Amino acid sequence: MKKIFEQLRIKKPLIHNITNYVTVNDVANMLLASGASPIMADDEQEVEDITALSDGLNINMGTLSKAKVTAMKKAGIKANALHHPVVLDPVGIGASQWRKQNTLSLCQQIHFDVIRGNMSEIRILVQHQGKIHGVDASEDDIINEDNLKRYIATVKSWALQMKTIIAVTGAIDLVSDGKKCFVIKNGTAQMQQVTGTGCQLSALICAFITANPQNKLEATAAAVCTMGLAGEIAKEHLLPYEGNATFRNRMIDAVSLMDGDILERGAKYEIR
Amino acid sequence: MKKIFEQLRIKKPLIHNITNYVTVNDVANMLLASGASPIMADDEQEVEDITALSDGLNINMGTLSKAKVTAMKKAGIKANALHHPVVLDPVGIGASQWRKQNTLSLCQQIHFDVIRGNMSEIRILVQHQGKIHGVDASEDDIINEDNLKRYIATVKSWALQMKTIIAVTGAIDLVSDGKKCFVIKNGTAQMQQVTGTGCQLSALICAFITANPQNKLEATAAAVCTMGLAGEIAKEHLLPYEGNATFRNRMIDAVSLMDGDILERGAKYEIR
Amino acid sequence: MKKIFEQLRIKKPLIHNITNYVTVNDVANMLLASGASPIMADDEQEVEDITALSDGLNINMGTLSKAKVTAMKKAGIKANALHHPVVLDPVGIGASQWRKQNTLSLCQQIHFDVIRGNMSEIRILVQHQGKIHGVDASEDDIINEDNLKRYIATVKSWALQMKTIIAVTGAIDLVSDGKKCFVIKNGTAQMQQVTGTGCQLSALICAFITANPQNKLEATAAAVCTMGLAGEIAKEHLLPYEGNATFRNRMIDAVSLMDGDILERGAKYEIR
Repeated sequence: MKKIFEQLRIKKPLIHNITNYVTVNDVANMLLASGASPIMADDEQEVEDITALSDGLNINMGTLSKAKVTAMKKAGIKANALHHPVVLDPVGIGASQWRKQNTLSLCQQIHFDVIRGNMSEIRILVQHQGKIHGVDASEDDIINEDNLKRYIATVKSWALQMKTIIAVTGAIDLVSDGKKCFVIKNGTAQMQQVTGTGCQLSALICAFITANPQNKLEATAAAVCTMGLAGEIAKEHLLPYEGNATFRNRMIDAVSLMDGDILERGAKYEIR
Repeated sequence: MKKIFEQLRIKKPLIHNITNYVTVNDVANMLLASGASPIMADDEQEVEDITALSDGLNINMGTLSKAKVTAMKKAGIKANALHHPVVLDPVGIGASQWRKQNTLSLCQQIHFDVIRGNMSEIRILVQHQGKIHGVDASEDDIINEDNLKRYIATVKSWALQMKTIIAVTGAIDLVSDGKKCFVIKNGTAQMQQVTGTGCQLSALICAFITANPQNKLEATAAAVCTMGLAGEIAKEHLLPYEGNATFRNRMIDAVSLMDGDILERGAKYEIR
Repeated sequence: MKKIFEQLRIKKPLIHNITNYVTVNDVANMLLASGASPIMADDEQEVEDITALSDGLNINMGTLSKAKVTAMKKAGIKANALHHPVVLDPVGIGASQWRKQNTLSLCQQIHFDVIRGNMSEIRILVQHQGKIHGVDASEDDIINEDNLKRYIATVKSWALQMKTIIAVTGAIDLVSDGKKCFVIKNGTAQMQQVTGTGCQLSALICAFITANPQNKLEATAAAVCTMGLAGEIAKEHLLPYEGNATFRNRMIDAVSLMDGDILERGAKYEIR
């Protein structure tokens, strides 16, 4: 994964983000920390121009609005036409009928190179059904050592069905293009206790695949390892009185200080 | 207040926030730090669904827009129908005629379990008049030891008039349901020097009362003590070169590391 | 610059910001750190009221929307009528035709006291042409010792042409009203690696000139020195495992802890 990370630092891709206003600042700073450049724009009058001057497009369904749906479609179609990598983060797809319909509709009109979410979000996206409580995965959708084999098969089949790379993140992360599946064990539980780690990861994936277009599966896995490793490093340095907010900052710190060697040594994955 | 805090950590309520885009990230992270889960959504197409799957609703009038007013009404009416706790933060109610009219209109259509603001904001909300400079309380609305007795009577009468719990925050905080009044002396002056401590507190109040529906008055007071105590703890650990931004993060840190015992020991209040 | 900074701390101006949702929280906290108060509002129904109760107006073109353009025009015309200082930050003016047209249109309808951007943004604003990649300056627009003399002349001529103070920021910053030009060498390269340092600076400029209306050129230069010096101080205290996010916070910390003497000693500028 060393070379993949180094390519990102060399190429410094410009990533167009149409994303929620909750975690947008962290997304921008995480992209900068990785070596990429962020641009955020979501008015339909300008998104095609912005997509055209950018190198990749990251679409995130959080705090959706009617205006943003229109902008996402225009930007996505433009990005597809220009062969720019496009990532979808179906945040909260199960939280409302309207969000679900809009997300499914985007999937029909736009080809996504990678779709990243928790197991419940991806299940709803693929199967159009499933339980969800807010923006977190349902309890019966937690991947562990006992059900790992079954989930690998499931994620592979979903990737084939959706003709895309699927990245399911949780305690164990699975990244598959339908043939191979990266099983990734970086990360710490505290990452669930700050908002936006998922959003930041989706943006990172977009940056990693944009800088490594010939190797999108491994680039996606490298982004997932980077984020998880950043969580591990952030946790190491916490003083007894430092909690969630310092941890949040230290994840961005860790990515800004990372290099290909640190990632190579710290990445914990196997290919199945 | 120990049990109230522990209930919040056990129940982990999902809080739907329709809030401003300035402090929304801090609101989300503060809710997570407290043990609750945040979800932000403000499009009228989906707010009723989101409110229905959530456990409580937090409405904040900052960076108001026409679209958000519509969403607030729909969400509030839905939450009332489902008997979900609803909190109002009338941020900047005195800053424009339009914001004032919309806030008063919400109060007519939605029952709020708690309304939290500074003295000037609450005065304008209740009396439909008063001076205000931006989003801070007017100088003649500062509660101190000399005028405390009078303000307690005032806040009690406002709570009775509005048929809600009123939480007025400042150097001294008052929380009353019209019968009892918690007089709270946690907090530090530095909390006024970072944006969003009020917004975060309103969200915390929503989480605390949602987890403690049988005891909303004490739950509101416990949230106010928690926020103030977090400020005190944050201040303790600041190094000479650490200022406002580190202080801001350390407040969220402190809540993430808090437990019922810390709150019980640190809460400074009397009931009048 | 000591007195200019002290005036800001004494006068505590209320600054109305119509700005992007990416860096808005940092803008608010930076204003508070400087001694000013922020208010953010961008609905056309209320911006004139908000501008009227504020002391200065800061307009930032990031994450532009149709609705915000309308609000910017109303607020800017109101601020001009009330003789409130108005600052423009033409973020990403070159990123789309639509953003460029709207920015140029604002410049025709509103008098700006200061326009701040990187060299590429200001070039496009003044000359209506130029290359840009995202929100960063083009490589051929980097000011250095070799081309400094030429850029000073250019910025002076632009200030005369636009009848405003121009603040061009980069590795070397130039601030000119057409007659004099402050050449400022505070700052560190790491400031480019976090989002929002430019947005924060534009807001600071608005606060500084609002508190020092008789001396806007020096006040603008003092704001630029303050931000650069904050970057230098932030860098000093970084531990080996602290990166971009901690650096970002420490800049706000540094401004909150700054005083007139620190600025006076740390400001690195000459007048040409």
